[in-house]
Amino acid sequence: MISPRHYHPERHFTGGDVVRDIVLGMSDGLTVPFALAAGLTGAIEQTGLIVVAGLAEVAAGAIAMGLGGYLAAKSAAEHYASERARERREVHETPAAEEAEVLDVLQTYGVKADEAAPVLRALRRHPEAWVDFMMRFELGLERPEPRRALWSAVTIAASYVAGGIIPLVSYMIFPSVRLALAVSVAVTALALVGFGYVKGRFTGAPPVRSALQTTLIGGLAAAVAFAIARAIS
Amino acid sequence: MISPRHYHPERHFTGGDVVRDIVLGMSDGLTVPFALAAGLTGAIEQTGLIVVAGLAEVAAGAIAMGLGGYLAAKSAAEHYASERARERREVHETPAAEEAEVLDVLQTYGVKADEAAPVLRALRRHPEAWVDFMMRFELGLERPEPRRALWSAVTIAASYVAGGIIPLVSYMIFPSVRLALAVSVAVTALALVGFGYVKGRFTGAPPVRSALQTTLIGGLAAAVAFAIARAIS
Repeated sequence: MISPRHYHPERHFTGGDVVRDIVLGMSDGLTVPFALAAGLTGAIEQTGLIVVAGLAEVAAGAIAMGLGGYLAAKSAAEHYASERARERREVHETPAAEEAEVLDVLQTYGVKADEAAPVLRALRRHPEAWVDFMMRFELGLERPEPRRALWSAVTIAASYVAGGIIPLVSYMIFPSVRLALAVSVAVTALALVGFGYVKGRFTGAPPVRSALQTTLIGGLAAAVAFAIARAIS
Repeated sequence: MISPRHYHPERHFTGGDVVRDIVLGMSDGLTVPFALAAGLTGAIEQTGLIVVAGLAEVAAGAIAMGLGGYLAAKSAAEHYASERARERREVHETPAAEEAEVLDVLQTYGVKADEAAPVLRALRRHPEAWVDFMMRFELGLERPEPRRALWSAVTIAASYVAGGIIPLVSYMIFPSVRLALAVSVAVTALALVGFGYVKGRFTGAPPVRSALQTTLIGGLAAAVAFAIARAIS
């Protein structure tokens, strides 16, 4: 068993939770429906069917990301609450063992037992703060914000839909699959470049490289989907 | 601007990184291609086309999740390295300001300045440990494992493919869309229940509820995709 402290977040955002949610939803929304539609033009001549498949994917992906994320966030909040209850019990019932754990944590940073003693005294004075200290420094768990979970899910799902509609519009307008594909590729490539650039500014990555990466992922996904569709149809 | 410390992980796993990656990939893999295929049976009579669309989606989704996750992990590792370099500069060049930050952090937990003084002395003796202390306790950043990124991406992508193939097999076998849909729903529902149950055991959620939630997400995504496909085709 590996403890939750080994959890390592894969993304670090400096633009707030809403931006993070928009980036999460739109990254996939701009990529997968685009790649699916482009792929299907390798096998289908009717733009109408491609729009149907694209919109079905957009709906399914938005629900999977939004509802899936919502339920995962609720579980995480419950997990935090139950871990905190356990930590509180330990602080009250076996304080000596908890003190040893505080010493262990601080020792990792070269703080000796006698140097940590005043900190222990302070934590004993504030049992609730002690519990918070253990949650953060022993378990590495951040307090979740369960009230944000619903709004976060809606933002992710809406961003997925917004991103997913972009590559499909040309298939709704042009009756020729080839023309629709060409316009879709051009429009989505522009959107991926712009989105990747803005995303880079928020994630701290160099914007130009972020733009190239986002476009690469979308382009590769579309090319592979196209090759598969052509190969088996 | 909200600092990275406000990042809150949405999932807490107790089963290790490989299990986490499998769960991430398979959650979506079992849901979206299933919903897309089910949705298309509301509009298309040829199972061959559904298989083409399903496999194109599986490829696109696997690339988006795998490659996207890989590049995000690489960015996070670089972000950590650059933040750590900045923190190290601050520790060496403006130690007084850093000491004030340590006091701030500890004060949050009711530790007074004079009680924190011995900890400051210890950190001054170990500048590298001090930098690590700031990374974890001030910024809330965990050291990423860049070497795991590639393996993690491959695991997520492979799990997405494995999950995505399951609902498509019946469309490869049966020529009738109705029969293929019925078998696909039955097989995927079983897979979602089993997967949700196992996932619950690893995430600490009650397994039965986790099984119900996973099945609900897949079922809802499929129902909405079906309704959309039928409505517009």
